[in-house]
Amino acid sequence: MDPVAFKYLGAGLACIGMGLAAMGVGNIFGNFLSGALRNPSAADSQFARAFIGAALAEGLGIFCLVVALVLLFT
Amino acid sequence: MDPVAFKYLGAGLACIGMGLAAMGVGNIFGNFLSGALRNPSAADSQFARAFIGAALAEGLGIFCLVVALVLLFT
Amino acid sequence: MDPVAFKYLGAGLACIGMGLAAMGVGNIFGNFLSGALRNPSAADSQFARAFIGAALAEGLGIFCLVVALVLLFT
Repeated sequence: MDPVAFKYLGAGLACIGMGLAAMGVGNIFGNFLSGALRNPSAADSQFARAFIGAALAEGLGIFCLVVALVLLFT
Repeated sequence: MDPVAFKYLGAGLACIGMGLAAMGVGNIFGNFLSGALRNPSAADSQFARAFIGAALAEGLGIFCLVVALVLLFT
Repeated sequence: MDPVAFKYLGAGLACIGMGLAAMGVGNIFGNFLSGALRNPSAADSQFARAFIGAALAEGLGIFCLVVALVLLFT
């Protein structure tokens, strides 16, 4: 079997990791919105922290994308 | 089959680990925000701890990236 | 098939274990923060215990990294 076949398989598996990172981001914003709608007056001060957390989780998802693109185009 | 084919497969599998680490980060920040919006006055003192936890989980995700990059480029 | 090919496959699978360990760390800190923000006066005395738990979970993730590195570099 051609080794290049496994590049396509690896890129597909990397996308599973990207999807899992999206679940992490979804968990952060889901909990933020759940709390913000219960106590809207505090939401403004906490949104920056929600964004820091989402950036950390999103970063790991972007790394998955980088690995997938490296697999596809090198 | 060429052993190098399995490097691509291994790099894709490492990305699944990266995504799972992002779920861990999402869980930490999700619970932090859920509590911080319920009790905003205590949020400042606990944010440093949320960050320590997120750094520990993020670190394991970065190790996955290291393994993936070692697989791709060595 | 060359046995060395499966080293790369094994290193990728070890990263899934690392990601799952990060989920465990996330669960510990998530629950700690959830409780600490509800009762901030007790948080200082319990943080050391959260750290012990996180270190145990993180340790298992590091063992996965060790296995992955042994697979890659020996």
